[in-house]
Amino acid sequence: MLSQRLRNAALQERVVTAEEACSWIQDGMTLGLSGFTAAGDVKVIPKVLVERVKREGKPFKVNVYTGASISSEIDGILAEANIVNMRLPYQSEKRMRGRINEGNVNYMDQHLSHTAELLRSGAIPPVDIAIVEAVAITEEGHIVPSTSVGNSHIFLSQAKEIIVELNVAQPLALEGVHDIYDPGHQGSRQPIPLTQAGQRVGTTAIAVDPAKIRGIVVTDQPDVNSAIVPPDEETEIMAQHLLNFLKDEVVAGRLGPNLAPLQSGVGSVANAVFHGFLSSDFKDLEVYSEVLQDSVFELLDADKIKVASGCSFTLSPKKHEEVMSNLDKYKDKLVLRPQELSNNPGLIRRLGLIAINTALEVDIYGNVNSTHVMGTQMMNGIGGSGDFARNARLTFFCTKSYAKNGKISSIVPMVSHVDHTEHDVDIIVTEQGLADLRGLSPRERAKRIIENCAHPSYRPQLLEYFEEALQRGGHTPHVIEKALSWHGKFVKEGTMLAG
Amino acid sequence: MLSQRLRNAALQERVVTAEEACSWIQDGMTLGLSGFTAAGDVKVIPKVLVERVKREGKPFKVNVYTGASISSEIDGILAEANIVNMRLPYQSEKRMRGRINEGNVNYMDQHLSHTAELLRSGAIPPVDIAIVEAVAITEEGHIVPSTSVGNSHIFLSQAKEIIVELNVAQPLALEGVHDIYDPGHQGSRQPIPLTQAGQRVGTTAIAVDPAKIRGIVVTDQPDVNSAIVPPDEETEIMAQHLLNFLKDEVVAGRLGPNLAPLQSGVGSVANAVFHGFLSSDFKDLEVYSEVLQDSVFELLDADKIKVASGCSFTLSPKKHEEVMSNLDKYKDKLVLRPQELSNNPGLIRRLGLIAINTALEVDIYGNVNSTHVMGTQMMNGIGGSGDFARNARLTFFCTKSYAKNGKISSIVPMVSHVDHTEHDVDIIVTEQGLADLRGLSPRERAKRIIENCAHPSYRPQLLEYFEEALQRGGHTPHVIEKALSWHGKFVKEGTMLAG
Ligand SMILES: CC(C)(COP(=O)(O)OP(=O)(O)OC[C@H]1O[C@@H](n2cnc3c(N)ncnc32)[C@H](O)[C@@H]1OP(=O)(O)O)[C@@H](O)C(=O)NCCC(=O)NCCS
Ligand SMILES: CC(C)(COP(=O)(O)OP(=O)(O)OC[C@H]1O[C@@H](n2cnc3c(N)ncnc32)[C@H](O)[C@@H]1OP(=O)(O)O)[C@@H](O)C(=O)NCCC(=O)NCCS
Repeated sequence: MLSQRLRNAALQERVVTAEEACSWIQDGMTLGLSGFTAAGDVKVIPKVLVERVKREGKPFKVNVYTGASISSEIDGILAEANIVNMRLPYQSEKRMRGRINEGNVNYMDQHLSHTAELLRSGAIPPVDIAIVEAVAITEEGHIVPSTSVGNSHIFLSQAKEIIVELNVAQPLALEGVHDIYDPGHQGSRQPIPLTQAGQRVGTTAIAVDPAKIRGIVVTDQPDVNSAIVPPDEETEIMAQHLLNFLKDEVVAGRLGPNLAPLQSGVGSVANAVFHGFLSSDFKDLEVYSEVLQDSVFELLDADKIKVASGCSFTLSPKKHEEVMSNLDKYKDKLVLRPQELSNNPGLIRRLGLIAINTALEVDIYGNVNSTHVMGTQMMNGIGGSGDFARNARLTFFCTKSYAKNGKISSIVPMVSHVDHTEHDVDIIVTEQGLADLRGLSPRERAKRIIENCAHPSYRPQLLEYFEEALQRGGHTPHVIEKALSWHGKFVKEGTMLAG
Repeated sequence: MLSQRLRNAALQERVVTAEEACSWIQDGMTLGLSGFTAAGDVKVIPKVLVERVKREGKPFKVNVYTGASISSEIDGILAEANIVNMRLPYQSEKRMRGRINEGNVNYMDQHLSHTAELLRSGAIPPVDIAIVEAVAITEEGHIVPSTSVGNSHIFLSQAKEIIVELNVAQPLALEGVHDIYDPGHQGSRQPIPLTQAGQRVGTTAIAVDPAKIRGIVVTDQPDVNSAIVPPDEETEIMAQHLLNFLKDEVVAGRLGPNLAPLQSGVGSVANAVFHGFLSSDFKDLEVYSEVLQDSVFELLDADKIKVASGCSFTLSPKKHEEVMSNLDKYKDKLVLRPQELSNNPGLIRRLGLIAINTALEVDIYGNVNSTHVMGTQMMNGIGGSGDFARNARLTFFCTKSYAKNGKISSIVPMVSHVDHTEHDVDIIVTEQGLADLRGLSPRERAKRIIENCAHPSYRPQLLEYFEEALQRGGHTPHVIEKALSWHGKFVKEGTMLAG
């Protein structure tokens, strides 16, 4: 049985226990873990490592690089054990977030397409040990990833040693879904030949030098993704605004009937939008995104989507089960790529994507904060949102107009942290409405955002600020001493509401 | 003589006076003008237009699109006459800046690589009349640009009508320097085949439908670029910091002996850095930039540069004279491209550039403001800095540590406007020193920036702010109500200095 999954005879001798593999990990090392969301993350070694470190009771820190977030369980126990020095490029876990915000973990929040380049150029410490989940190892000793690709190819190519978690709970039928392409070094690189969302340009396994594979640990735990937040009334309204806008763009001749390849972030709004497509007239859609969530498969089932390219399958437990046992049905419509391809600026621009991402807050001039609550506390990270927002043909940012029961306005005079500048933001969507900012100067944008997107209870306050700012003048008028006063007020008084 | 420059016989009948050509321009139109800096801008029509509008005394506004800034003379008279409704994507002129900051001109400050895409996708009003400078019109009726390419190819392809300023003061020897490549529409685009800084992938003239050329106006005025600011003691020190850093990177094996293709913004620091290369040991360098300034030609003369690609020659009057009369000497080492190629994210990443740009202010976490004085008053615009900073292999931002005789610290707790986020900034250089931020978390960055880059007279204040922020915690600690207080203090009291 195992020989189906471990096809290189010489490597069969490298099967070891998790404990043994774990013993190779030393204090001060940099680990490159597979995983993009809980999809395809390594499930056993980190746990055994944490136990070992606890048992040994000696000072121990490692750098942990991943594709993006990994399962809460793994990031959580790493955080609890406090054994992480540097963490990159993304996380979304409560305990890890806590460590980051208390300054205990050096978090490098990165554009998800950047990590591979930073490793190639030597800008960040190199990976000592790559630990990746696989569904199989080929006769050549090459690695067939499981439900995500993420940064695995670059970790594997740069690591001195490799540990494989060969997960028999992940279907072998995943083989063939991946498309592994390594662009090579900057300066001696050929153009990436991809010109269509569903095109294959690489190989189905990650080529590695089998000699580097020091150990193979057989595992059998499924991915544990969190349940998808179902659309609520407000996210459904936001989705409708967005879909109506896209329909109007088709009528105006600015988009074709099949739109353009779609990217969407994780989360409730993205999910609601994709649900909205289900009952829309759009068809033959294409997806070129990071995570492929439940809704992508529903759209595939409904024959709305022709092809979907991503770098991970992030599925609810129920959908995971369903998809994994019917992979053959989807296989020719799916591609999983390294994240430096799914998020590649050149490809995003070449394909002309429609990018849909979520903001924490937006200011009246269209600058977006997706990461820092009240300017200081890290929520998750910028993730791939910048790769897409900057380079897409159309960039949407969605957010409810308020948070914390109305104590916070998500439309503010000035965002308390900038992840996406006004230059990279085309359209703002809230449950109140949609603001198309294309072709507008900052003063024009302010009017449109306040009118169309702000919550009515904050609209007068925003207008008052804007009027006062106009008295001061400037291309982007501000009352500089009041620009962040709403955040100051919330921190002190627990509300942004005036009066 | 003219037949050498105007080689299409049928088009010879379209030679008209500037006054006649000007009469075709109607209130409400969108004009696409050639010009990237004063290089290759149109020199006559805008002047005649302003005179006409004054004479007629009727309400008149047009949208003015260009490559980047144009000569002060032209942007200045357009601003004075107050006939501009929308201006994009960049300017650097005192009077135009005034109109923008008073809210009279709707300025769309854009990434310079974005404008062509926005026109293709219909996101901004289309160009009615393209008015471009040429050194020749070929037998096919195609247009040979002069000292810049900028956005001319897209203006010409989209405009309903074309007016050519055929400038006999620009040497015909420029023909052959240009490399015109239009990537085509997003979604049906092939990979741009360029893999080397100096490679030619297109044609030497811009293909147009000759039927669209409504008029040809013969002109004879040279480009009028402003003089280059010579290096002073402080910019020389900054250049030395930067060059020493590059040398160390070579020693560390992170860069090869010929570095990587260099991009640098306009201005004194960029110029000082390029001067620094003159007396360095580096050789066989390549340039892949926007503007090619005097120093590039000095480096070519000194045989330090193998090849230089840009989208304009921005030369001091003296250098212009010298280069233009010796073009044959340089021709096989120079390429002028459309700005969507010189600034293309995909190409910048493929080639792995070293990008050197200038900031107005930088905050302790490495966010950069290049455009808005005190958060509100537009200086020039983001220009191409974002295209390069985000996608380069190494991104430098340079700034003196202080401005206005020390009343302003260019290192601040929080920048008052963000053009480049922490994610896109690798290295900060001031006359005080250099901060290599690669691989650092925000708290680590703050320490390094304050220690290495801040002016000694502001260092204690910055440390005090940072200490207080640390008490509050967070991934990016801030005392939110004080984060912009330095700017508030300067606006009110004329200084950021405490006490
Ligand atoms: C921005 C982002 C955090 C929104 O996530 P979400 O789950 O859709 O948003 P929610 O509305 O549930 O808000 C999440 C939390 O932020 C809080 N919040 C929302 N807006 C806020 C604001 N303006 N100020 C402070 N807190 C706010 C919510 O109250 C909620 O808090 P809770 O966890 O205590 O309940 C998330 O999309 C993200 O991390 N984006 C950045 C990365 C990214 O875009 N990834 C995909 C790109 S490819
Ligand atoms: C940032 C930029 C304005 C700096 O220009 P520069 O000429 O090198 O800088 P200087 O030091 O001469 O400063 C220009 C002015 O800004 C002022 N200034 C500098 N730092 C300042 C600060 N922190 N706050 C307020 N004003 C400041 C200077 O005092 C000077 O004012 P003055 O014109 O009244 O004398 C310029 O590089 C720019 O516009 N960059 C953005 C676009 C770009 O990068 N283009 C090239 C990319 S390819």
